[in-house]
Amino acid sequence: MSEERREQVRSLARGLAVIRSFDAERPQQTLSDVARSTGLTRAAARRFLLTLVEEGYVRTDGRLFALTPRVLELGWSYLSAMGLPEVAAPHLERLVATVRDSASVSVLDGDPASGYDVVYVARVPTSRIMTVTITIGTRFPAYATSMGRVLLAALPQPTLDSYLDGLRPETLTEHTVAGADPLRAELDRVRGDGHCVVDQELEAGLRSIAVPVHDRSGRVTAAANVSTHASRRDAAALRSEVLPELRACAAAIELDLRASG
Amino acid sequence: MSEERREQVRSLARGLAVIRSFDAERPQQTLSDVARSTGLTRAAARRFLLTLVEEGYVRTDGRLFALTPRVLELGWSYLSAMGLPEVAAPHLERLVATVRDSASVSVLDGDPASGYDVVYVARVPTSRIMTVTITIGTRFPAYATSMGRVLLAALPQPTLDSYLDGLRPETLTEHTVAGADPLRAELDRVRGDGHCVVDQELEAGLRSIAVPVHDRSGRVTAAANVSTHASRRDAAALRSEVLPELRACAAAIELDLRASG
Repeated sequence: MSEERREQVRSLARGLAVIRSFDAERPQQTLSDVARSTGLTRAAARRFLLTLVEEGYVRTDGRLFALTPRVLELGWSYLSAMGLPEVAAPHLERLVATVRDSASVSVLDGDPASGYDVVYVARVPTSRIMTVTITIGTRFPAYATSMGRVLLAALPQPTLDSYLDGLRPETLTEHTVAGADPLRAELDRVRGDGHCVVDQELEAGLRSIAVPVHDRSGRVTAAANVSTHASRRDAAALRSEVLPELRACAAAIELDLRASG
Repeated sequence: MSEERREQVRSLARGLAVIRSFDAERPQQTLSDVARSTGLTRAAARRFLLTLVEEGYVRTDGRLFALTPRVLELGWSYLSAMGLPEVAAPHLERLVATVRDSASVSVLDGDPASGYDVVYVARVPTSRIMTVTITIGTRFPAYATSMGRVLLAALPQPTLDSYLDGLRPETLTEHTVAGADPLRAELDRVRGDGHCVVDQELEAGLRSIAVPVHDRSGRVTAAANVSTHASRRDAAALRSEVLPELRACAAAIELDLRASG
């Protein structure tokens, strides 16, 4: 690849890093802030920022830079390409109306080396006030969540082995399954049961149950879950009261996926 | 700017266009598809796609390319930088529990020349099945929506005039206010009333009411709304039953914005 080509490729990667450098701690940044947080020179940071201003992704008052809502269109391409959120939404709404707890659909992102996250692509909260703020695009480590375990359990065995071999699970609460071996045993159970209950392993007080969602070819393409406060339903209640409704919801999503695909 | 610099700038713009080229109609694309839909040469499309694969935003089986959930992180930068969705969510949930209709928060995006959109940054649907699928990042023409009119009414007068002078509003339903002059009169009313009702102007059967949300400096930074089915509440019921609750919700969001900012 010529130097010019290499430069092209680097430019895109760096421009995306400039977008990602804005967050809750840095909602507005000066040129120097962006240069510092991306490792770019001031001159390069300036060029990328001005390109993003030109393209409508960043606005500036001359000194401070901030992202514009147009940035959401980039994620929107993904959600719209997937179709899953639109297909899932009415079924999740029906499920929430029945079980009176929040319901979500997630997909898996990552690879064996850097680890796997679940990423929320659809969510219907209950009208109860939740302590956990989750929106579309929120990600959690897959191993600590019910949807993540359902999705991990469906990975090809060699891929899963390679992931588990390298995994050092973080103990997020006193309940988090520690170590790759207990997790491997848990994933075997999940594969056998066809569902997964996670009890306060991601956050104290949060309990959830998940099932797989299959695409037309029968592959696990997503997971659907219901989450509840630990004081509201125990694991047994999740299995007896929620699981049949959750399975029916997943089946309805699968039927629509077959029809729409 | 040197040719090399210009190339850098173009590369970022083109890479973003490659991301946007995926949508519901084109969830998976070959190299040729991407080249066609972006206007890039095959060689250039290939370089951008491979960079995006390298950066984790695109996956490929060698022939077909698709976006990965990592793309959502780009929009997540924006939402997290704004803080507004997290602040608004619990208040919207409380509002929906009271009024039993969907509630949302939007911001304005655009400029006088190319027009303004409202972009949804937070939304709590009711558990009733909605005919309108709206998620975070969804955008509608500002002039046809209650939140859009609240936000347009708060623009500086010269900016608003320049926008209205160039506006050719599309007649989206038989109720859409047609023409810049009736819209100007309507925005004057909205500014005076401090709220806006839009009755089936965006979509038949959809009726909504919106109020402004102010930031710490007193500027209108967002709009909050409640939308209902036309058969469920008429405009008078929106004003008498919903408006007081909606105003209380906006005030609670403003209070939290002041505390968190």
